[in-house]
Amino acid sequence: MAAMSAGIAGAALAAGAFSRSQPVKRQGKAKAVQLEAVRESVVNNTATALETECINSIRFLAVDAINKSNSGHPGAPMGQAPIGYLLFAEEMNYNPEDSKWVNRDRFVLSSGHGCMLQYSLLHLAGYKSVSIDDIKQFRQWGSKTPGHPENFETDGIEVTTGPLGMGISNAVGLAAAEAHLAAVYNKPGMPLIDHYCYTIAGDGCMQEGITHESASLAGHLGLGKLIAFYDDNGITIDGHTDLSFTEDVGMRFEAYGWQVLTVLDGNSDVAGLRDAIKQAKACTDKPTLIKVKTIIGFGSPNKADTHDIHGAALGKDEADATRGQLGWKYGEFEVPQQAYDVFRGHAAKGASKQAEWEKMWAEYQQKEPELAAQFKRACMDRKLPDGWADSLPKLTPEDKGKATRLHSHDCINALASALPEFMGGSADLAPSNMTLMKCTGNFLKGSYAERNFRFGIREFGMAAMCNAMSLDKTGIIPYCATFTIFSDYMRSAIRMAALSQAGTIFVTTHDSIAVGEDGPTHQPIETIPSLRMIPDLTVMRPADGNETAGAYKYAVLRSKNESRPTFMAFTRQALPNLTNSTVENTMKGAYAVIECADPELILVATGSEVHVCVNALKEGLAGKKVRVVSMPSWEVFREQPASYKSGLLPKSVPTLSVEAAVTWGWDEWAHGHVGMNVFGASAPGQTCLDNFGFTAANVASCAQRLLAGERGVLSDGSQAKH
Amino acid sequence: MAAMSAGIAGAALAAGAFSRSQPVKRQGKAKAVQLEAVRESVVNNTATALETECINSIRFLAVDAINKSNSGHPGAPMGQAPIGYLLFAEEMNYNPEDSKWVNRDRFVLSSGHGCMLQYSLLHLAGYKSVSIDDIKQFRQWGSKTPGHPENFETDGIEVTTGPLGMGISNAVGLAAAEAHLAAVYNKPGMPLIDHYCYTIAGDGCMQEGITHESASLAGHLGLGKLIAFYDDNGITIDGHTDLSFTEDVGMRFEAYGWQVLTVLDGNSDVAGLRDAIKQAKACTDKPTLIKVKTIIGFGSPNKADTHDIHGAALGKDEADATRGQLGWKYGEFEVPQQAYDVFRGHAAKGASKQAEWEKMWAEYQQKEPELAAQFKRACMDRKLPDGWADSLPKLTPEDKGKATRLHSHDCINALASALPEFMGGSADLAPSNMTLMKCTGNFLKGSYAERNFRFGIREFGMAAMCNAMSLDKTGIIPYCATFTIFSDYMRSAIRMAALSQAGTIFVTTHDSIAVGEDGPTHQPIETIPSLRMIPDLTVMRPADGNETAGAYKYAVLRSKNESRPTFMAFTRQALPNLTNSTVENTMKGAYAVIECADPELILVATGSEVHVCVNALKEGLAGKKVRVVSMPSWEVFREQPASYKSGLLPKSVPTLSVEAAVTWGWDEWAHGHVGMNVFGASAPGQTCLDNFGFTAANVASCAQRLLAGERGVLSDGSQAKH
Repeated sequence: MAAMSAGIAGAALAAGAFSRSQPVKRQGKAKAVQLEAVRESVVNNTATALETECINSIRFLAVDAINKSNSGHPGAPMGQAPIGYLLFAEEMNYNPEDSKWVNRDRFVLSSGHGCMLQYSLLHLAGYKSVSIDDIKQFRQWGSKTPGHPENFETDGIEVTTGPLGMGISNAVGLAAAEAHLAAVYNKPGMPLIDHYCYTIAGDGCMQEGITHESASLAGHLGLGKLIAFYDDNGITIDGHTDLSFTEDVGMRFEAYGWQVLTVLDGNSDVAGLRDAIKQAKACTDKPTLIKVKTIIGFGSPNKADTHDIHGAALGKDEADATRGQLGWKYGEFEVPQQAYDVFRGHAAKGASKQAEWEKMWAEYQQKEPELAAQFKRACMDRKLPDGWADSLPKLTPEDKGKATRLHSHDCINALASALPEFMGGSADLAPSNMTLMKCTGNFLKGSYAERNFRFGIREFGMAAMCNAMSLDKTGIIPYCATFTIFSDYMRSAIRMAALSQAGTIFVTTHDSIAVGEDGPTHQPIETIPSLRMIPDLTVMRPADGNETAGAYKYAVLRSKNESRPTFMAFTRQALPNLTNSTVENTMKGAYAVIECADPELILVATGSEVHVCVNALKEGLAGKKVRVVSMPSWEVFREQPASYKSGLLPKSVPTLSVEAAVTWGWDEWAHGHVGMNVFGASAPGQTCLDNFGFTAANVASCAQRLLAGERGVLSDGSQAKH
Repeated sequence: MAAMSAGIAGAALAAGAFSRSQPVKRQGKAKAVQLEAVRESVVNNTATALETECINSIRFLAVDAINKSNSGHPGAPMGQAPIGYLLFAEEMNYNPEDSKWVNRDRFVLSSGHGCMLQYSLLHLAGYKSVSIDDIKQFRQWGSKTPGHPENFETDGIEVTTGPLGMGISNAVGLAAAEAHLAAVYNKPGMPLIDHYCYTIAGDGCMQEGITHESASLAGHLGLGKLIAFYDDNGITIDGHTDLSFTEDVGMRFEAYGWQVLTVLDGNSDVAGLRDAIKQAKACTDKPTLIKVKTIIGFGSPNKADTHDIHGAALGKDEADATRGQLGWKYGEFEVPQQAYDVFRGHAAKGASKQAEWEKMWAEYQQKEPELAAQFKRACMDRKLPDGWADSLPKLTPEDKGKATRLHSHDCINALASALPEFMGGSADLAPSNMTLMKCTGNFLKGSYAERNFRFGIREFGMAAMCNAMSLDKTGIIPYCATFTIFSDYMRSAIRMAALSQAGTIFVTTHDSIAVGEDGPTHQPIETIPSLRMIPDLTVMRPADGNETAGAYKYAVLRSKNESRPTFMAFTRQALPNLTNSTVENTMKGAYAVIECADPELILVATGSEVHVCVNALKEGLAGKKVRVVSMPSWEVFREQPASYKSGLLPKSVPTLSVEAAVTWGWDEWAHGHVGMNVFGASAPGQTCLDNFGFTAANVASCAQRLLAGERGVLSDGSQAKH
């Protein structure tokens, strides 16, 4: 305990010595103290022989796997092994036989490049998903041990990490899900949901902006079940962090409202780490950051504490030398039985914890039949209730038109009442995005049972949190909102939702130059088409009220049943309700709003441009046999039967696409294009639409040119540029 | 000074009361204190009558312009008016007659939605770009007063803001440029570059992750000439910041190494603000954050301190009521002459400051002829030196092939020696991106004359800083680097470079699934095509050494001469050097690497897929008349004469595109496509290329299918998915 007391003392000292006038000096001191402490504590190792053997089992599985693949990041697993040991051999409740047990503790390796730590732990703990042969296949084609943790490849991995800062932000989302479910379902003596969320983050995570966003919100929300380890090894790819990163991370997290603890020797001071976790659990109203000073590549005589060991195999000689330094007498991929026994003994305890939980669950079903039924349906079976979609709005062309963001608001409120697992919010644009649920309050410290999230102006953190709320696998249907243009701020999280199969519903509004006065910084042009490029993401751009309802029905089914994301784009401006627009038609991806048995011309459009095409028929296309197609979703239409697709859009009929966005990709559906291949301008929205060519008259004249044989981009907005 | 002393006292108190155990309580206290102080100081107004008239001139120009356009954000200008007054009427050195004077003080309105503050100030100061009629045209089509500040529309605006957090990050870049130029060019008694960079940021900027990245780096670099005002008005669109944002911002910035000052009444305490600026300037080794407590919409009896005034016009009645409350006796758009006199009097001082500077510059040219010549060429005339490109590498097919990221390293070092204004670096991937310049050291506190930036793992902040280093208009050619996939983290800044005409060179490496073992989280698929969609951005994906040199020649010309951005994507893996590849051919965007007078088939590819097409000729296409075209840049090729384009890629000849990315957009150039429309996988890079279909054999067989009449996507990578 010596080193730990030193650690606590050090922290206290720091607090005492804290002075607004000389933070740099203070920090300098603290660093000196730390390095001393590290050297000292290597001598004052608090780990028992068995603990050390378990910890070294982790280290050498990583060393050997990375040597065999000759690719990977050994430094982090070697430094973080003691943390991993404590979590998987002492602290965490989990059951390898049922990796999706709803009340398991969650673990996220935010520094995902160190994934051999996680694979070693899953293997030692007895997850069938990671056999010793899987570890020997590290980073090989088709293996269960890819180069970063992938929840869709490896059972036991909660979320996919690698893009730095994403994991710790996911962890905030998992902790928020825990807080919500506990507040809704727990009853006296029956804590159905009562678990921790642990994460390990590195210097990279701490430098990334997304971490600022999610950590600031976690502090604001007071998520006491969130415990984050900061692996403070002082090394990044460029070299020592002194080159670029000298801020006081602990002080920053205190500013966020976190409890911050320090362990000065994470390499050997197991007792110190254990004590820090104890203190973290004792603090129930704040998340805890445990700053752990480690040596990257601990145990490697020639490469430890250098960036050479960050991202390259040690090689055989250095592996041997490391075995020598750490007194490791076992061969490659050899794990001493007593180490297996320790991890699997703890895993067995997890299994009995689950057995106890099942007993409680049986009792709960007796005493709380209604809530139990809801919990079973929503969280365990993860099924939608009968008739959940019945309350979605239905409109007729006679109904007064309004902005699709307002229809979206109606849908959100219909779903909020029908689905207790539907929750989310906006990045401080609730009154613009129209995302507030009227039937519930704000999810805040003290009101975790409520479902309106107030994410603040934190798009990227928001999206990563929502991805995790879906990947929590407790049936939550998360949505998050911002302006369409600012999906750029969270693009990497949208991609991760698609890749890692998270059922996030991305609600965006102000979806074109019709944003108007805010100008080109706020007017999406390429945004929506560029998102259609992301594999496994569905993009929906509805044209009216019924299409909006259809988009939500699709998005909820896709989120709940398939755990897949949907991106939606809604208008700021009012739109008329179309003929033939129905939920059923919307869920085909495309359909005719103006039918025509034997068309000589087809106009195909999305969202706010569909009614412009309808109007074009009256202006200059009179007497022509024209079909007008609304195509709310390319991805959904692609999945339709070939006969339906070729029937609706026969290649032989001249087809003009109309969308207030770049024309890219429309060649898949049309021969000529009216689009927007230049940046917009600041002016009233209708003025922008008129000047950039989204008028019935311009669509009609471009259609005439198409009929006269012209092909390709017939109007791209450049005519409005002076 | 009463309120300010209270402010200082308050800050001191806060520092004294600081305790690691109870930040929440401490913060609660501080808030109470602040509101009291605000109430008090409204009484103890330290502004003189004339100052108040100048300040209210700003407020009412904003109120009236926004009422007239019935669109905009009056709240921020009304609260920030005293800060604006002090900067433009007392503190800043600028000359409306020469807005690009190289040593002017820089001002960035990071809370860009409050742009009427900046337009009012530019008008009052006498910039011809903003007449009273321009103000009356606020947010109208073709006006010089768009909905957010746009440097490309309005003379006197340094950078384009609106996307939150971007502006303060730009300011860090401007301050870095100042520090560098001062270190390189200033001589005893001749401070050629010696100016401040001021910025005003709001709650949104403080919540965005990008601000964490750039502020942390600014503190690390100790940029003492950077002075940021935090308009702490406690209101965002969702309502009071208590809903989502309760962190201690001042404490966070102290953790970054900033000096943090507090002014408790920013509405009326002009003396307090003046004193804070004085203290900021006195602190030369740290940036300063001045936390200014303001009331949003100050002066509006019914809407002040509510979110109603954030983003909507006051309306005539409330404007009248505000005139009453602030005792404003002037009509709409009426500015008292004495207010004009104050601002223009100060602007005249700026003009004489420039005159003094011109004298010094004349002396400098005498005493430092060599440096002066360089300064004139690089910074003032912003011209490239003769022969600057001669040292770019030239290679032949006989030269051993290597990764284009290594060719990129050679180019960077050639340019580093030829161009003292060439500077930049990587987001902690220097050894992977290969971006270190050998002829110069690290740009760090104490070594600002050096040119290697160590941005840390901060992609978004890095990109915004580099945009600003170009928009500083002192001739700097900035480059920044990360993995291609992580351009998603900075996508909004890449878009802003294109929109605001910043000459940033985006260097990205590991540009395809050939990244290999790191897996799909690190393998770009849609990234490069999605960037080609951004208007006015040039994307370059070179295929070998000469194309890499050509890409750099193009990018440097475009940056220096046109102030436009280029995005480059380089390989991790080695590539052979091609026949016909030259700098000149590369600068045509596309050319034939294998010529064929009368082709029956054309293969067109980019980057690492070009040599695969060349090999395909030997495998299965023997005897066919085939042209192989390398297309390093779509945008550049589009600019070529129609005859060259139709000659190289005649529409009549069956053409197959091959690129390890989504096939979107290739219809513009080809009839059939080999691409990657699914996510990649973790395995050695060559294995990924082979399994996903980027082999000579697969290209040849797809070409045969094209010749047999098939069209569209012929290979999309899905064959490799199990």
